[in-house]
Amino acid sequence: MLILSNEDIEKILPVGACLEVLEEAYRDLGSGMAATVPRYDVFSPTKPNEFYEYKTMSGVLPNRKIAALRLNSSVVTWYEKAGGVRKDKLPVAGGDRYVGLVMLFSTETGEPLAIFPDGYVQKLRVAGASAIAARHLARKNASVMALLGSGWQASAHLITLSLVRDLKKVRVFSPNADSRRRFLDEWSNNISAELVEAGSAAEAIEGADIVTCTTNSISALFPGELLNPGVHVSCVKPCELDASTYQRSDPLIIHWKEAKPFQIVIGGVDPQSIPDVAEGWPHPLTREDTPLWDLPTISQLVNGQHPGRTKDEAISCFCNNVGLGLQFAAVGSEVLARAREARVGREIPTDWFLESVHP
Amino acid sequence: MLILSNEDIEKILPVGACLEVLEEAYRDLGSGMAATVPRYDVFSPTKPNEFYEYKTMSGVLPNRKIAALRLNSSVVTWYEKAGGVRKDKLPVAGGDRYVGLVMLFSTETGEPLAIFPDGYVQKLRVAGASAIAARHLARKNASVMALLGSGWQASAHLITLSLVRDLKKVRVFSPNADSRRRFLDEWSNNISAELVEAGSAAEAIEGADIVTCTTNSISALFPGELLNPGVHVSCVKPCELDASTYQRSDPLIIHWKEAKPFQIVIGGVDPQSIPDVAEGWPHPLTREDTPLWDLPTISQLVNGQHPGRTKDEAISCFCNNVGLGLQFAAVGSEVLARAREARVGREIPTDWFLESVHP
Repeated sequence: MLILSNEDIEKILPVGACLEVLEEAYRDLGSGMAATVPRYDVFSPTKPNEFYEYKTMSGVLPNRKIAALRLNSSVVTWYEKAGGVRKDKLPVAGGDRYVGLVMLFSTETGEPLAIFPDGYVQKLRVAGASAIAARHLARKNASVMALLGSGWQASAHLITLSLVRDLKKVRVFSPNADSRRRFLDEWSNNISAELVEAGSAAEAIEGADIVTCTTNSISALFPGELLNPGVHVSCVKPCELDASTYQRSDPLIIHWKEAKPFQIVIGGVDPQSIPDVAEGWPHPLTREDTPLWDLPTISQLVNGQHPGRTKDEAISCFCNNVGLGLQFAAVGSEVLARAREARVGREIPTDWFLESVHP
Repeated sequence: MLILSNEDIEKILPVGACLEVLEEAYRDLGSGMAATVPRYDVFSPTKPNEFYEYKTMSGVLPNRKIAALRLNSSVVTWYEKAGGVRKDKLPVAGGDRYVGLVMLFSTETGEPLAIFPDGYVQKLRVAGASAIAARHLARKNASVMALLGSGWQASAHLITLSLVRDLKKVRVFSPNADSRRRFLDEWSNNISAELVEAGSAAEAIEGADIVTCTTNSISALFPGELLNPGVHVSCVKPCELDASTYQRSDPLIIHWKEAKPFQIVIGGVDPQSIPDVAEGWPHPLTREDTPLWDLPTISQLVNGQHPGRTKDEAISCFCNNVGLGLQFAAVGSEVLARAREARVGREIPTDWFLESVHP
C-alpha cells in the first residue's frame, strides 16, 4: 500500500490534470455504471463555538477499478468576516496540522491501494467540476472571467477554467485587498490571461462571460440582478449565490440530487446554532417551480441527457451543491497511476491490512 | 498510529470483554450524546453472480474521545445451502485473504489513532449486542438456551450470553451435522453450561428460555409458532426469524431505526437479482400495527426509556436489524486502551497521515 503526501502528489499531478477522468466518472454515474455514497457530517461540541466534525463520503468507479473513501476528522469553528460568517478548521493535530484522508481500494481484489491527504487533490476535484460544467455551459467564445475569491481554490479555478475556454481577461475580487493583491502578484505571470484587480464583486462581474465563485463564504457574494444575459455562473457552495441568481438561471445544473450533506448534531446542541446546518433551511436553491431533486445534474449534462446551454443570451449556472465521493475515486485513480509510474511515495506492506477470516 | 492484527487483538481482548463500553455507547446514542452514521453498501458486478461490495459505516463516541470508521472492500457471491440462500465472501486479496478494516480517530485532535481488521472485533460487537439485549429482556432465571448456528458468531454468542445469564444447558443446532459436532467438541469443555446436540431447530427450541440465532442464513430458521411463552429470542439478521415470531413478540426491540442498510446497485444489474437487496422487501419486520421506525431500540431499552420485559409469560425479541458504526467506536476504544497498555501492534508515524493545508 502506497502512502503519499500532498507534496508527492503535487509533483506528479498538475492542477487541471484530471478533467478527462472526472468527466468519465460523471458519465458513468449518470448511466448507473458508478456509485457515489452520500456525505455525512457529524458535529460534536468540544468547547463553546468549537466542534469536532467527522465527515465521510465514498465512490466506486469500476471502469477505473477503484473505490475511494474520503474522511475528515477535524475541529472546526465559525467566525465573522466581511459581514458574513466563515468556517475554519483548527490545526489541532500534531505539528499544528489537519486530518483529511483519501483511501483507495481495488474493486478486483478488494485490497487497499493507497492512502493520501485530501488537501491538494481537493483543488483538482472542485475546480475540475467547475471547469467541466463551464466546458458544457459557457458560451464557446467566453473570454472574460470574474473570479470571486483569492484562496487556493481561486488559483485552481483560474488554471483549470483556462483549459476549457480561451480566457483573455480575469477580474479578481476578494474582500481583503491584501490577499487579492498577493493573488495577482503570484499569478499574473503564470497565466496567459490578463489578471486585473476589481474593487468590488459588482465591478468584477460587469461584462464578464463567466463568473466563478470560489470562497468559503456562507452568504451570497452579489445580488443576482447584476448578472448580464449570456453569462455562465458557478459556485463551490450554494450559499455563495442568491435566490435571484438561481431564479434567473436556465439551465441551472446541480452537482448531485442531494440538497446538502446529511448532518448529525450531538451533545445537546441546538442544530440551528451551527451555521453549516442552519444555512440549509430554507435551501438557497429552493425554487417554487422545480424541487431540487428535479434539477438536472452535471452527470446528465456530460451524458447528453441534458442539452446544456441552448441560447447565447441565457444565464447558465452550475451549483456545486454537495461534494461527491466519486470525485475522489476519479482523481485517486489518476494519482495512483502516476505515483506508480513515477515511483513516488512510501510503500508499506498491504499484508498488514488483510485478514484471513471474515465476519 | 497503531496497526493491529486480529491475533494482536485476540491476545488482549477476550470475547465478551466489551459489554460495558457497548452498553454505555447505546445509552449515549439514546440520549443524543453519540452518533452512528448509516451503513451504505455498493454492489458492482464483476462476474455472473459475483459482485464487488463496498461497505461503510461510522460512529462518534465523544465520552470515549473516539470516532470510528468500519469499511469492507470484498468480492461476494451467494449460494444455496440447506434449502436457503447463503452469502459468502471470496478470499481474493493477496494470500487468499479478505479486506475489512476499522480505523479509529481522536475527537480531540482529529488524529488517526489505530487501524485494524474487523474480523475478531466483529465477534465482540455482534455477540455484545445480543447479550446486552438478553440482559434486559430474558427472564432473570433463564437457564436453557437454544443456539442456532455453529460458526464463530455462535461461539462468541455462547461465551457472551453466559456472562449475562446463568446458563445450565445449551442445545446446539445447525444444518450440517459435522459442523455442529465440531462445535460441541471444541466448546463442551470450555464453558460451564452443558452443551447438547439437537437434531433440528424445533428440538433445540423446545423448552428453551433463550433462543439465539447466529447464522448467515437469509431465510427463517423456524416457524414462530414453535416458541413457548416466556422465551427470549434474538437474531443477527432479521430474516433468520419469521413474521409469526415478530407478531408474537412483545416487546420487540430493534437495533436501530433504519430498516436495513442503504444499498446502491450499479452496472446495469436488476437490484432484485441480488439476494441482500431482494430479501428486504417486504421487510420481515414489517408489522401492520407498528411501522419499523416506531419500534423501540436497544438504546431506549438500556436508557430506561423502554421498560423491557414486563411479564414472565411474554415472548421478548431482539432483532439486530442493521449494524451500527457506533459499535466499532465502543469496541475500538477498548481495543486501543488495551493495546497501548500491553504494547502490542506495530507503530507507524502519525505524521504520515497529517497535512499542513486543508481544503
